[in-house]
Amino acid sequence: MKPIKIGLFGLGTVGRGIYSIIGRAKNAHAEILRIAVRDINRPRGLDLPAGLLTDRADDILDDPRINLIVEVIDDPDASFAIVSEALRRGIPVVSGNKTMIARHLPQLIELQRAHGTALLYDASSCGSIPVIRNLEEYYDNDLLLEVKGILNGSTNYILSRVFDHDEDYDSALRHAQEAGFAESDPSFDIDGLDSLYKLIIITVHALGVYVAPERILTLGIGHISDADIRYAREKRVKIKLVAQVVKVADDAFTMFVMPEFVARNKYIYSVDDEYNGVVIRGECYDRQFMFGKGAGSLPTASSILSDVMARLHGYRYEYKKMSYLDRPAYTTDVELTVYARYGATDLPSLLPWRHIGESYRSDDGNYVIGRISLADLIARRGLLDAPDVFLANIPTFFTDRD
Amino acid sequence: MKPIKIGLFGLGTVGRGIYSIIGRAKNAHAEILRIAVRDINRPRGLDLPAGLLTDRADDILDDPRINLIVEVIDDPDASFAIVSEALRRGIPVVSGNKTMIARHLPQLIELQRAHGTALLYDASSCGSIPVIRNLEEYYDNDLLLEVKGILNGSTNYILSRVFDHDEDYDSALRHAQEAGFAESDPSFDIDGLDSLYKLIIITVHALGVYVAPERILTLGIGHISDADIRYAREKRVKIKLVAQVVKVADDAFTMFVMPEFVARNKYIYSVDDEYNGVVIRGECYDRQFMFGKGAGSLPTASSILSDVMARLHGYRYEYKKMSYLDRPAYTTDVELTVYARYGATDLPSLLPWRHIGESYRSDDGNYVIGRISLADLIARRGLLDAPDVFLANIPTFFTDRD
Repeated sequence: MKPIKIGLFGLGTVGRGIYSIIGRAKNAHAEILRIAVRDINRPRGLDLPAGLLTDRADDILDDPRINLIVEVIDDPDASFAIVSEALRRGIPVVSGNKTMIARHLPQLIELQRAHGTALLYDASSCGSIPVIRNLEEYYDNDLLLEVKGILNGSTNYILSRVFDHDEDYDSALRHAQEAGFAESDPSFDIDGLDSLYKLIIITVHALGVYVAPERILTLGIGHISDADIRYAREKRVKIKLVAQVVKVADDAFTMFVMPEFVARNKYIYSVDDEYNGVVIRGECYDRQFMFGKGAGSLPTASSILSDVMARLHGYRYEYKKMSYLDRPAYTTDVELTVYARYGATDLPSLLPWRHIGESYRSDDGNYVIGRISLADLIARRGLLDAPDVFLANIPTFFTDRD
Repeated sequence: MKPIKIGLFGLGTVGRGIYSIIGRAKNAHAEILRIAVRDINRPRGLDLPAGLLTDRADDILDDPRINLIVEVIDDPDASFAIVSEALRRGIPVVSGNKTMIARHLPQLIELQRAHGTALLYDASSCGSIPVIRNLEEYYDNDLLLEVKGILNGSTNYILSRVFDHDEDYDSALRHAQEAGFAESDPSFDIDGLDSLYKLIIITVHALGVYVAPERILTLGIGHISDADIRYAREKRVKIKLVAQVVKVADDAFTMFVMPEFVARNKYIYSVDDEYNGVVIRGECYDRQFMFGKGAGSLPTASSILSDVMARLHGYRYEYKKMSYLDRPAYTTDVELTVYARYGATDLPSLLPWRHIGESYRSDDGNYVIGRISLADLIARRGLLDAPDVFLANIPTFFTDRD
């Protein structure tokens, strides 16, 4: 067991959490030798040893003492440059950068194979909940049917303010920003991209298949209106932003990120505030539910620490499911039942509905509830981005609690 | 990757689940070569290949093709004989026998070390919830503060009938037996032994310390009365049978199994029916909650399958925390706040209370609520078994949701 000597990239919220946690974990046999930051002179209010900080990546990459790189910077392109270079040099990496990983996972897997090294990233999906590791190691069999959950704390916090505290959307967003649960530019969370990237990573470890972001329907909560909220309240459901990957046949699965009407008997109904919750459904174990803090400095840092400790024992993802004989294929040929609210954009005539079961018009807003294929929604993606349009999934093909 | 050739011991409920699941898991590269049963002629309603069954353990132990033994028989002594013999011969074992493992874990760890082989037993604790593997691998650091949960499905099913369906205890127990969630002799579950053995195994993987069963306070639900149920309902709490291991200082932890008053804001409040739920609390990630089916043929078998798959990749528990420098020590020198209901057994005078905060006498039953040390409860263990006595823990030293 070789002690871990870390080169850390990034000293933002998560980086500071890591610095604090590594210091506290007596049995981690880990030490941070160098920290690379963009601006070495920025005051940080931390009592750091002289020479710890550097603004040159090579000071870490070239340091022969360093046997693990931990990367938590917020620029996905810079992150990919650093991580891929480290892997090429055979240095293992722990990263929390979901955007970078989701966009480049096939290359990153290839780099790990080619250079016999490891990239761990459990922190990238659901912070402190060990989703990736469990999917990779424990649900390592063909019994897995579905992974579905609330993967984004910001939007969940906002929607919890709306549905549990009767706030309107704008004040809920403001509260989330004040509480530090939403960025000043919240679009990454609100548009569903954060959930999407996590879902892509989860799917690789759940089913062994990588699907590129642009192929996946991703609808956010930014256009939710008072009428939608009122409708959901009347139906005694909550609207939540849900990401899911679901086997729809032995040889096919689908995946998407969409607002969803969540009924009271579902596990994720009670995932509130900034929390994340994931339901793993399988053929024999029915449903498993994992719940915890999905973001924040220390929860994310503790997940990074788990990956660091795993490296102490030489752990790496094997991507076992990618070598399965009969991997299921991604399909968008599935029918969804959706609530579609609209104003001037005439959704009933512009979308190729298979069936419209309910239709409502009023001065406040109009909606239809109908069945439509996922492929058709993706083909009309532009329509769905209109500011007067809001869609929510109404789960029908899943039974009971999920 | 060597295909797994299994010798299976036991073809009861779980054994049949394993037989069915291994057949279904195409990518498991696993095959059952031989099944040892007590009575080879018993009709089983299964279409088994000729020669699969045997009633001689040596037919499996001596078979050079078999590279994994899966043991799910219900006799702990016979189980220990088989498992220890297999380990001595260097054959890895997957077992679901919590009683056997909890009683003999130090020897079993030593046998694994001495003979360079592996014993996996995630199925022994909480069926399909991957508690052991996560504690061993993911919560592999000194941040862990507490593991607390509902580990026994039978008692939870009974108590759910009482608190969610307003039944009395006797009819709830009868319903549990009819539904197959309680044995005809339910004492193993009801007296808390099932929870205790799981807690002992969990503690080894949570904190790296083995504590023998007889050193741990284990109180069951068998003596619960209508008065206790009424009291809990009035206070708007549920009584649940809770097992917990808790760090009480940097260098000390305590553990016990006791009925507990569970308030509505606790995660485990909503763990109902036959489900299990475990809360893992740590310094940085706050609380993680894992929830799922804790027992039953297929959930347990799917957990066994996960261990089988892990063996395909050579996985073994490293018992890393047992080699930590500063392992915390087990202490019973902690103060609990308990509700103690009694009839003729005069608990107020017979127990060394540090403080009695509430005292009630009536024709229906009497109770006190007071503070008392765990060590004193253990020393007066005999008193607590009196049929007119029922104790429940009132959690005080934990905050908020747990």
